[in-house]
Amino acid sequence: MKTVEVSLGTRSYPIRVGRGLLNDATSYGEDIGRQVLIVTDENVAPLYLERISIPLADRELASLILPAGESNKTLLQAARIIDVLINRGMRRDACIVALGGGVVGDMAGFAASCYMRGIAWVQVPTTLLAQVDASIGGKTGVNHPEGKNLIGSFHQPRAVLTDTETLDTLADREYRAGLAEVIKYGVGLDIGFFAWLEANMADLITRDPAALEYAVSECCRLKAVVVAEDEHDRGQRALLNLGHTFGHGLETALGYGTVLHGEAVALGIVLAARLSERHGWIESDVTKRIMALLETAGLATTLPAVNKTKLLAAIGHDKKTLATSPRLIALKSLGSAFVCDEITMQEFEAFLDENLDG
Amino acid sequence: MKTVEVSLGTRSYPIRVGRGLLNDATSYGEDIGRQVLIVTDENVAPLYLERISIPLADRELASLILPAGESNKTLLQAARIIDVLINRGMRRDACIVALGGGVVGDMAGFAASCYMRGIAWVQVPTTLLAQVDASIGGKTGVNHPEGKNLIGSFHQPRAVLTDTETLDTLADREYRAGLAEVIKYGVGLDIGFFAWLEANMADLITRDPAALEYAVSECCRLKAVVVAEDEHDRGQRALLNLGHTFGHGLETALGYGTVLHGEAVALGIVLAARLSERHGWIESDVTKRIMALLETAGLATTLPAVNKTKLLAAIGHDKKTLATSPRLIALKSLGSAFVCDEITMQEFEAFLDENLDG
Repeated sequence: MKTVEVSLGTRSYPIRVGRGLLNDATSYGEDIGRQVLIVTDENVAPLYLERISIPLADRELASLILPAGESNKTLLQAARIIDVLINRGMRRDACIVALGGGVVGDMAGFAASCYMRGIAWVQVPTTLLAQVDASIGGKTGVNHPEGKNLIGSFHQPRAVLTDTETLDTLADREYRAGLAEVIKYGVGLDIGFFAWLEANMADLITRDPAALEYAVSECCRLKAVVVAEDEHDRGQRALLNLGHTFGHGLETALGYGTVLHGEAVALGIVLAARLSERHGWIESDVTKRIMALLETAGLATTLPAVNKTKLLAAIGHDKKTLATSPRLIALKSLGSAFVCDEITMQEFEAFLDENLDG
Repeated sequence: MKTVEVSLGTRSYPIRVGRGLLNDATSYGEDIGRQVLIVTDENVAPLYLERISIPLADRELASLILPAGESNKTLLQAARIIDVLINRGMRRDACIVALGGGVVGDMAGFAASCYMRGIAWVQVPTTLLAQVDASIGGKTGVNHPEGKNLIGSFHQPRAVLTDTETLDTLADREYRAGLAEVIKYGVGLDIGFFAWLEANMADLITRDPAALEYAVSECCRLKAVVVAEDEHDRGQRALLNLGHTFGHGLETALGYGTVLHGEAVALGIVLAARLSERHGWIESDVTKRIMALLETAGLATTLPAVNKTKLLAAIGHDKKTLATSPRLIALKSLGSAFVCDEITMQEFEAFLDENLDG
């Protein structure tokens, strides 16, 4: 087992990464009070709800199974969690355990942040995407018909228990999509980790336990450093959005579910590399290495057919609600991303034109 | 004008207290960005919405008028605020101005805390109750059918603009109810302020501007000290609940609107004094001084007819959801409250029996 500390003063907490943490009563210990509500979804419940209930059997335990999927990440579902907390008489020292992927974590964390002005919570992420990204850094939230995560909070968990054994049951396509976020850390933050991924991708694809534990804990470590410097996302934390401005736009333009988040991010990383190459910040062989690694991981690097007007509108809407210009993350060099404010919307549109046609 | 600083590190902010702050463009300055949403209610809008819009006329300004009253302090209304923020294209650097009493402040602050994981807000409290209590300390929230403020957050405003001139339009009964909270500060936290209130209550009743400015700013100062020591309500902040355990129970048992919050708190203060006297912590003349001051302020000190079973159930429900025993605030001496954990629910019930019959 590896432990990564997220250093946030009084809100610091450990991320524990290893096989079988879920079953181990010692994983929970001090982090969890007497009253516990497990929040999970209809996909994860049949696999792990019974297993996680065993080490928690000595608590006053309740559980809630939510409908799965991004389309259910709504204020209504978060309010259901709060209803259960109230109906079960949960006190201020109660704790929510979020068992599942990013959707479950975001909603359960948001409910925890709002119930009695904030109760404790522990994350038990069960997808690769959630283990290397969503479960780190305390971002919680739900979607609004007008946009993703428009309603939410920063509410750090007491602990994250990342049981890599849960990845055994993950569907291939979801697993590969998660690898896009893993690769993102190498491309944007750490050339050494990028090289490790090039050398070990074959082991990662077969879900080799030792390779997985190393890769997941490295991602946690890299993200924890950024989060510790910029908890509330006012600066450095934007670097984690490498590939995401375009990725989000693509998800919206194609309709949610057509392309997985990680698949869209993979394409966004390719575009970020090309844009950086065009500006002369990186050489063309860097772009080639990035594309090769994504392809080895089984991820597409050529853009699907997409309605350009819809795509630009989706990115433009992000712009309208979030900032006055598109917040692109580009590469200074391999392993070194930066927030690139000098690219105008017009230039970005022209660049998209080239790449969507090609 | 007086300024009270709430010292909370990076979340510190000023409370400005004075006549005419609302109209004065210099009151806003740095605290407010380019995009501003004014949230108010149907009672306050006809009185002050136009006035407050003048010093803010150079901003990108929107406003939302909510239905008035505690029964409308719901998740649904808070979600309406967020809908307006989204539909008006408000960015992360936008600001909410909460213009009104405690209900408006609690809802607008909660919406500000949830929109894009937290945007800035400024409070402009227009009732005495909100000026001396609700607007200080960053507690936000909405009610749930099962209890008050069960959904909420801690989200400190950027500034509080307390324009005592707005109290000129406050109905007499509401004003007197606000005085109960003013008296609470003297009784629980500061014997010197209590003596000042005894000497100056006649001026306060006629709403003398100088007396009002002093009293309101003293309340802000006293609360700010407690909040600075215990932002998240884990200890000292409970002292501010003097008179509130019983007060909340009475509000619930009589039905909201029958008795005003401040009126219920006044009765709760009387009971806290009697309970403290019964235990020998204070002399009977202290209870008499407290009752005399409340009566001079026009507040009732004798209990109304109330269904005992309902009252105990309401207090018991508080107990169930918030702690394992009733969290009573008692008096060590005049001006010195303490959290009294040694009184059992049984003893409290017996004490209520005596006082409800008497």
